[in-house]
Amino acid sequence: MLSASDRAALLAAVGEDGLVLDEGGRAAYETAARYGGGRAAAVVRPRTAEEVSAVVGHCVRNGLAFVPQSGNTGLALGSTPDASGTQVVLSLDRLRAPLAVDAADRTVEVGAGVRLSALNAALAEHDLCLPIDLGADPMIGGMVATNTGGARFLRYGDMRRHVLGLEVVLPDAEGTRLTLSAGLRKDNAQLALRHLFVGGFGAPGVVTRAVLEVHPRPRQTAAAILVPRDEAAVLDLLLAFEREAGPFLTAFEGMSRAAVVRALAHVPGLRDPFQGGEVPPYCVLVELTSSLSPREGRPGLADLLEDVLADLAEAPGGPLADALLGPPERMWALRHALSEGLRACGPVIGLDLSLRRADIPRFRAEAAAMLARDFPEFEACDFGHVADGGVHFNLVRREGGAAEPARAEQVREAVLALAVEGYGASFSGEHGLGRAVQASYDRFVSPLIQAYSAAVVGVFADASPAALRLGPPQ
Amino acid sequence: MLSASDRAALLAAVGEDGLVLDEGGRAAYETAARYGGGRAAAVVRPRTAEEVSAVVGHCVRNGLAFVPQSGNTGLALGSTPDASGTQVVLSLDRLRAPLAVDAADRTVEVGAGVRLSALNAALAEHDLCLPIDLGADPMIGGMVATNTGGARFLRYGDMRRHVLGLEVVLPDAEGTRLTLSAGLRKDNAQLALRHLFVGGFGAPGVVTRAVLEVHPRPRQTAAAILVPRDEAAVLDLLLAFEREAGPFLTAFEGMSRAAVVRALAHVPGLRDPFQGGEVPPYCVLVELTSSLSPREGRPGLADLLEDVLADLAEAPGGPLADALLGPPERMWALRHALSEGLRACGPVIGLDLSLRRADIPRFRAEAAAMLARDFPEFEACDFGHVADGGVHFNLVRREGGAAEPARAEQVREAVLALAVEGYGASFSGEHGLGRAVQASYDRFVSPLIQAYSAAVVGVFADASPAALRLGPPQ
Repeated sequence: MLSASDRAALLAAVGEDGLVLDEGGRAAYETAARYGGGRAAAVVRPRTAEEVSAVVGHCVRNGLAFVPQSGNTGLALGSTPDASGTQVVLSLDRLRAPLAVDAADRTVEVGAGVRLSALNAALAEHDLCLPIDLGADPMIGGMVATNTGGARFLRYGDMRRHVLGLEVVLPDAEGTRLTLSAGLRKDNAQLALRHLFVGGFGAPGVVTRAVLEVHPRPRQTAAAILVPRDEAAVLDLLLAFEREAGPFLTAFEGMSRAAVVRALAHVPGLRDPFQGGEVPPYCVLVELTSSLSPREGRPGLADLLEDVLADLAEAPGGPLADALLGPPERMWALRHALSEGLRACGPVIGLDLSLRRADIPRFRAEAAAMLARDFPEFEACDFGHVADGGVHFNLVRREGGAAEPARAEQVREAVLALAVEGYGASFSGEHGLGRAVQASYDRFVSPLIQAYSAAVVGVFADASPAALRLGPPQ
Repeated sequence: MLSASDRAALLAAVGEDGLVLDEGGRAAYETAARYGGGRAAAVVRPRTAEEVSAVVGHCVRNGLAFVPQSGNTGLALGSTPDASGTQVVLSLDRLRAPLAVDAADRTVEVGAGVRLSALNAALAEHDLCLPIDLGADPMIGGMVATNTGGARFLRYGDMRRHVLGLEVVLPDAEGTRLTLSAGLRKDNAQLALRHLFVGGFGAPGVVTRAVLEVHPRPRQTAAAILVPRDEAAVLDLLLAFEREAGPFLTAFEGMSRAAVVRALAHVPGLRDPFQGGEVPPYCVLVELTSSLSPREGRPGLADLLEDVLADLAEAPGGPLADALLGPPERMWALRHALSEGLRACGPVIGLDLSLRRADIPRFRAEAAAMLARDFPEFEACDFGHVADGGVHFNLVRREGGAAEPARAEQVREAVLALAVEGYGASFSGEHGLGRAVQASYDRFVSPLIQAYSAAVVGVFADASPAALRLGPPQ
């Protein structure tokens, strides 16, 4: 699919072992993490930022479309080629250097192709970590380009909060390399251009290297599953934990009965924290962690958790109906099994919504009523990061199996319209941008913002390297 | 100084009481917080974003230069007019609405003209606060445009971290109003354009309203003054506190003897924590705060502080030489007196540097040696936010009094060159951009970044409303 001259130029840029042309070799780069994928003309795997620059420059000069990709674990089709077979995948998976920890500075300089697990292994030697907790094991380039959030956002924030500096390659004819900020915590001596590249899904440029702030590793953990008195009480529980355990609160994960029940039914070996009893309509995994050393004779996190729960239990008419204590790993096993449990019931219609957190109970109730009325064959199996407003609003057919595509599209559109138009929600809370949300982008982002976004990207980019069109069709 | 047609148009936009023409009325808006200031053709004080839009649109259409200003407490001459008498000050000080706290969402929607103190008073009713701690009492518009940091940055971060949404007026012929993000914690459905306006010192547009995340108010505080074994040991102390008290660590403020001595000598009523004994070469105010309720029978923050200090004291050859405990207010009184103590000795040559924190001891030593060699009449009286690399590197003449302007410029340039070129420091860590740092911007920001920054601003702005030229002279 690649012209002879493109092939020769890319070979010259990355060498024989950096150019993947055969179908078998391309497959992993063409297949998206969960659903979908496309076909690439070639996969190019540069080893250095210089090589990235050569590849990008060639592509731009010659009108060769390319899609940057690192770990390819994203869920918005932001890193896979389309079906045309004409796009080149620019894989960053060999940019595994540097991986330089500075423990006194509490920062790390890291190549775009380093996996989160590899980064955390290197950081662990210094008792440090990048505390972004995900279901997948992405690479740093994609985490930056997606502005990954995750389950511990409420305490640590997203990638944006950790990115102190970036090196990028711009999609222009020269493949211009740019250093954006010098890796300082405080720097207001210039516009914060790097924030266009964080969450920029590659559109203004390809991230090749980052300087990240990192954190002391947790040394204590305590967790519980909370059963709220009713669904509105979830917020009261959250506020109580923020008030009474705030500095240690690292997760507050809401789980609907529909999601929990499917995980318990379909995920082998998963222990039932409700021990066969009734699964409540909604429950919350609350986690406290601390980097402090346990001190002899001093109460630890488990004591604090018990104190907070005891106060809540004593409040007459309070928000807490029940609380289950247990090993944190076991609690998380349930939370992490939810996606697998759903997929076992057929293809999932997944919406990565983000709302004002105060709106979550009302939105959930209204969406459930709408489904019961207009789409009774679907059930909402949602879970999410309540404290930061994240709701993974997943729909499955009650009978299992795949929905008719048109019907699936209808229910997706109806929920999106309710969330975005009715509640001012985001249609991509933490999965970022990619082909999977192009229709939502076109529909819900105001034409003015689309135009300014496209113009800002145009400052850096002579061509669009990303799997999403930012502005209205030209 | 205003033409009749400009005057009529501005009157029509903001009404009689919104247009300040007389010298007495203008003075407060023309005078900068510490040194310098200029002269305005007029001060325009719109009451609403619609009025801001009308004023900005008129100015842009008619080539009338304007400088946005809110609390006018900044230190970079970013909010005062130049000396020409031709610029209009666009004051946001009447944009005091909304001030709407949402306690369940833990956010507040706030007009650009609301003072930090007024915001915190409204938040206190809900046991919340915006924990950005400054020597001044700025307004929100300026805090956003400067990306204010402050003494508790290490725990809470800067304004950027708190801004969930913005409303801005663009400096174009229509005075276009733009809403940037809807106030969600997680939103990756579009480019993060708002981050261009945070720390944008008004260049891409004028902030009229913000949605901010806020925090539970502290309910316990403990503080100490630490004397490190030597200056390199400061970092070891910091790492020990991050490790053993991290979740509660809210300040780690380094203070040089030269600064402390001047505060003790010149600030009336200031208590000497060293009780007349020798002031150490360098000391650190460490503060722990917690939003957790003190619980009967459970150790509090003061106990934790004592535990950490005891561990440090027991370590043979450890980093801690001495520690003074006392009421936090008294410790902070010393820290807050440092600027006043310096100013009492004559005009201060103030540099708002930010370094990799690991570089601070080495930079301080090298700068001191350079001063002793090349500028022996000056003394560095620095203090700073060690944990985030902030160093307020202040120079005063040893004899007191003002330096000759050319000599003052020489020493400023020499320190800047050492910091920025030798250590990759920022020349504006937290004071942001303004005329005061134009020369540094021109000299130290790479031409490529200057060009991209100017082009990005040009996407939003038909005219430059700010007191700094972003790109090379046209």
